[in-house]
Amino acid sequence: MSLIFTNHVAQALDETVDRLAPTSLLILVDTQTASFVLPRLLAESHAAARAKVLKVPAGEAHKNLDSLASIWQQLSDAGANRGSLLVNVGGGVITDMGAFAAATFKRGIAFVNIPTTLLGAVDASVGGKTGINFNSLKNEVGTFARAETVIISTTFFNTLPPGQLLSGYAEMIKHALITSREMTDRLLRYDVTAYDPTVLLDMLRESVSVKSDIVEKDFAEQGLRKVLNFGHTAAHAFESLAMDRRAPLAHGYAVAFGMLVALVLSRMTLDFPSARLHSYASYVADHYGAFAFSCDDYPRLLHFMHRDKKNRGDAISCVLLRDIGDPVIDCQVSDADMTAALDIYRDLLHLP
Amino acid sequence: MSLIFTNHVAQALDETVDRLAPTSLLILVDTQTASFVLPRLLAESHAAARAKVLKVPAGEAHKNLDSLASIWQQLSDAGANRGSLLVNVGGGVITDMGAFAAATFKRGIAFVNIPTTLLGAVDASVGGKTGINFNSLKNEVGTFARAETVIISTTFFNTLPPGQLLSGYAEMIKHALITSREMTDRLLRYDVTAYDPTVLLDMLRESVSVKSDIVEKDFAEQGLRKVLNFGHTAAHAFESLAMDRRAPLAHGYAVAFGMLVALVLSRMTLDFPSARLHSYASYVADHYGAFAFSCDDYPRLLHFMHRDKKNRGDAISCVLLRDIGDPVIDCQVSDADMTAALDIYRDLLHLP
Repeated sequence: MSLIFTNHVAQALDETVDRLAPTSLLILVDTQTASFVLPRLLAESHAAARAKVLKVPAGEAHKNLDSLASIWQQLSDAGANRGSLLVNVGGGVITDMGAFAAATFKRGIAFVNIPTTLLGAVDASVGGKTGINFNSLKNEVGTFARAETVIISTTFFNTLPPGQLLSGYAEMIKHALITSREMTDRLLRYDVTAYDPTVLLDMLRESVSVKSDIVEKDFAEQGLRKVLNFGHTAAHAFESLAMDRRAPLAHGYAVAFGMLVALVLSRMTLDFPSARLHSYASYVADHYGAFAFSCDDYPRLLHFMHRDKKNRGDAISCVLLRDIGDPVIDCQVSDADMTAALDIYRDLLHLP
Repeated sequence: MSLIFTNHVAQALDETVDRLAPTSLLILVDTQTASFVLPRLLAESHAAARAKVLKVPAGEAHKNLDSLASIWQQLSDAGANRGSLLVNVGGGVITDMGAFAAATFKRGIAFVNIPTTLLGAVDASVGGKTGINFNSLKNEVGTFARAETVIISTTFFNTLPPGQLLSGYAEMIKHALITSREMTDRLLRYDVTAYDPTVLLDMLRESVSVKSDIVEKDFAEQGLRKVLNFGHTAAHAFESLAMDRRAPLAHGYAVAFGMLVALVLSRMTLDFPSARLHSYASYVADHYGAFAFSCDDYPRLLHFMHRDKKNRGDAISCVLLRDIGDPVIDCQVSDADMTAALDIYRDLLHLP
């Protein structure tokens, strides 16, 4: 897989298409990127101008079987074959779902991802995780498949609201927390909502390389790679609860909150430094606010955690930290400890 | 992957489950195998008796997105997780579709195939091809995924009608044609409709090993493995045409006819021996009859052939033979040559 960091996206796409020489080119967008990103790409890229455009509705609510079937149908109707190339242009929903469609169309065609959100750039575009939501569960159906090329750029982010930037930034903080104190301190000091495109592209290169190094070593998530799930056990449960309430929670926000739960558990069971836990909690409270729930929601949250893909057997399995940069995978967490951690989470974020 | 040839299936299943020690066991059957095979398995296998049974409607017409979604739903509702094991018990439809569901549920859980038809045993159970029909196209959607274990037995075949046996036998003949004259001559002399279970199990072992050797060397179908597509270009077109007519053609019959088209093309372009072409044509006429069509159907057949997964670019791509045991992959066949071959096919099978 090639990973291209550039603020000249159209040129990078043309070079990629020249290199891969597909028999046909298809571009997948959602109704959002069709309006904001596609026109620029069509105007500036020779390859894009000749491509067939496939479209699905925007938003996490449409990351479902209907949209997947629609992409398969559009690929089939366009006569795509095994030599075709699908270019996924959009946020994590589009890159996850487009990659899954490509990986399963005629048992697999090549695809390129062009993430248009910070979250997509840092999280969804590398790692080969693809999928859709199913049965009210996040990414319940999917596969592992490698993009031919991922083109990462900060040029699309200027239309993003601050909340979207913060959502992606949470995953960058995750990469820092599992890797290095220096990187963590630097990220917690930077104001991503007032970013400089070149500086952020460099920060992205550093952050994505943390992930791609790990993925390269453990593609099918047998061991090491699990560290990337840091914070995600509680995060996914929060997202599922939010979906139930019909008030979806942005993934990065869920991760910011989920990492707080993981740090509380790390403090409880692995002696993670108290001062670092409290400074992270303040950072979250200041920038992300809080995902609110009461103890009435605990059974439902625990239910979601027990359904997590990462579990083997009955206990909830989490990544925890001995310290920043020192992760421990496969920590078995009892329901009692998780309940205590949720109590402390609510205290730290001043929830009633 | 382990490949177990045995006429003690329940015991083999119990040993497999003991070895893999899954967190939960699920068995997928269709309405047909639920009646004929499952009761025996539940009575004789300790593992099966404890398993959760998933059911879908029987038949090629149900190898579709609805059934796939139903399997995902049943897996999800049963709380299957990454440590679970899915056992697919049935013909090629069930092993293809169950394997695809397993390979994509939570990004992949382990599965075991127990083919209950000769075709399934020889063709669908080894090779990692999984999928469903979509948009009226065979296996338009799917993936490559390896079964943990395949348990192959002839004990289920005694309830099969002769046509089903012949259907599977065509794939065994295919393995012979691409491999060895001796094996080909032996198979064309044997009467599979009056088989002896032990003899047929030995013949299956030999035939499946042809396939598994090839697949082992080329899992993702980059080159060598394409020889296994011998006869399948025309076969898939015949099946698609038959589906259009709402009179489905058994896959093995389609392959028997498709190999005849491929041998005609081999004769036309690679000097395949005329005597061998005619003796194969007689064998097909005697045992399989003929799939009938007129020249009015040629455009539709060519359309299907051009949509074949195996093409790259515009021409129809076929495996042809210089002689028995001497295959050539990626032969580009012009529409004119294919048309001529379809004419000769009709002559050889005495079609009007």
